[in-house]
Amino acid sequence: MQIGIVGTGLIGASIGLCLKAQGYEVVGCDTNKDHLATAIRRTAIDRGADLAEIAKLDVVFLCISPSILIPVAEELYTNRGELTIFTDCGSTKTEVAAWAADKPMFVPGHPMAGHEKSGPSYATNWLFRGAKWILTPSKKTDKHAISVVQDLVKKMEATPVSIDPATHDRQVGVLSHLPHVVAALLIEARNSLPLEKVSGGSWKDLTRVAGVDPNLWTDILMSNRQELDGILGEYEANIHKIRDMLSANDREALQGFLQHIVVSKERQNES
Amino acid sequence: MQIGIVGTGLIGASIGLCLKAQGYEVVGCDTNKDHLATAIRRTAIDRGADLAEIAKLDVVFLCISPSILIPVAEELYTNRGELTIFTDCGSTKTEVAAWAADKPMFVPGHPMAGHEKSGPSYATNWLFRGAKWILTPSKKTDKHAISVVQDLVKKMEATPVSIDPATHDRQVGVLSHLPHVVAALLIEARNSLPLEKVSGGSWKDLTRVAGVDPNLWTDILMSNRQELDGILGEYEANIHKIRDMLSANDREALQGFLQHIVVSKERQNES
Repeated sequence: MQIGIVGTGLIGASIGLCLKAQGYEVVGCDTNKDHLATAIRRTAIDRGADLAEIAKLDVVFLCISPSILIPVAEELYTNRGELTIFTDCGSTKTEVAAWAADKPMFVPGHPMAGHEKSGPSYATNWLFRGAKWILTPSKKTDKHAISVVQDLVKKMEATPVSIDPATHDRQVGVLSHLPHVVAALLIEARNSLPLEKVSGGSWKDLTRVAGVDPNLWTDILMSNRQELDGILGEYEANIHKIRDMLSANDREALQGFLQHIVVSKERQNES
Repeated sequence: MQIGIVGTGLIGASIGLCLKAQGYEVVGCDTNKDHLATAIRRTAIDRGADLAEIAKLDVVFLCISPSILIPVAEELYTNRGELTIFTDCGSTKTEVAAWAADKPMFVPGHPMAGHEKSGPSYATNWLFRGAKWILTPSKKTDKHAISVVQDLVKKMEATPVSIDPATHDRQVGVLSHLPHVVAALLIEARNSLPLEKVSGGSWKDLTRVAGVDPNLWTDILMSNRQELDGILGEYEANIHKIRDMLSANDREALQGFLQHIVVSKERQNES
């Protein structure tokens, strides 16, 4: 089976490392020639090829930024081989799933794995180990195509999970996009202070992901902008509730809220 | 020199462990008899005593919750020995510094160290190693008292730093209280999702401090409520700016903001 990888960054090159280790031939494509060369040097892919050739391989992984995903997917799908199966790794799914709804050979996907460093230098065949790999097929998606993608996901030691695209986008909005915005805003809050090293351990934890790859994260956040706007609206409303407790000196309400958080966190960790 | 410790929790027992290792006699007081017994068993203090006896020792550390700090400090200071020096470890300083402004033998303080676990079982003589230990003396504070407290702080391997109480409270508001509120609100945001394990690494980091000791943190946040309300107001306004960028699909503005965060974080880390 010949695998095509479009975009040989952290995710694409990690997929290549996984699948080459399983004996597949892996062919890559990237407009970033440094990434392509690094992916070849690190044996993540066997060789480079153009989109026209990649479009006709057995399975093609699109591992590119959300902002260019649909046009590139369109070009590939138009020139596809008769039996070629496509899947993507974009971090939001509503838009691409709507586009793919009438394209049986395209299985939208999103591996729930990553790293604060980007690029093929950081790729590893361990990246997906133990992670959930979300798939959002439609009713028209070819059953065999879904099954082939699921098998490849399992070979990368991840667990394929099928959910609907809107649920996926709400989940990554809360669990990934919101923390990134929150971390960035903490850095912004600190800009109002004199520069002195007085922060404790919690600061470092909470701001670790702040300022990671601004171009990629602009694309990611923008691709989920409606959902994220709603999530931030709820977050803002909750901040306002805390402010009300503070300004009313309502100790009981604040204690009740913090205790509710303890219980919530335990329940979330048990899930 | 005889050291008194009022409140033998994580901070008080850690101070005891540090100073007993340096050869001081350490006497403790706690309404929580389990804490007192644990502190003795762990050799953090030599023995228990009542407030009246503690008030007459050479140096007394108040390591109790902000909500009861002032009344206990008042009782101790009223019954103080002629040369007794007092200092506290409360996490906000404006209120206690105002109270102490006309009390030369009281040096308000705050060690910038902690742990997500509380109680003397988690106490360690390494807790203050490399940490800043803020002192907020007034113009009337006795110079010798400041110098004695500074020396003890250095013996605990921390660095004493004198700043004014308002600056301190703004700094801990941004660097400690805000992250704790932010982490709690992330847990609250997740309550709107079905319970499924799809979160990545950033989630765990950002919520580590959520739900830590709700009683203590109610006291801490309430003791800094005016400053924190202002900080949360600015934070809320910044969330609103991000929401405006999202709803206007203003990619350029979002990218500009994220790039500004990269630069800010680098500058903050260099400080």
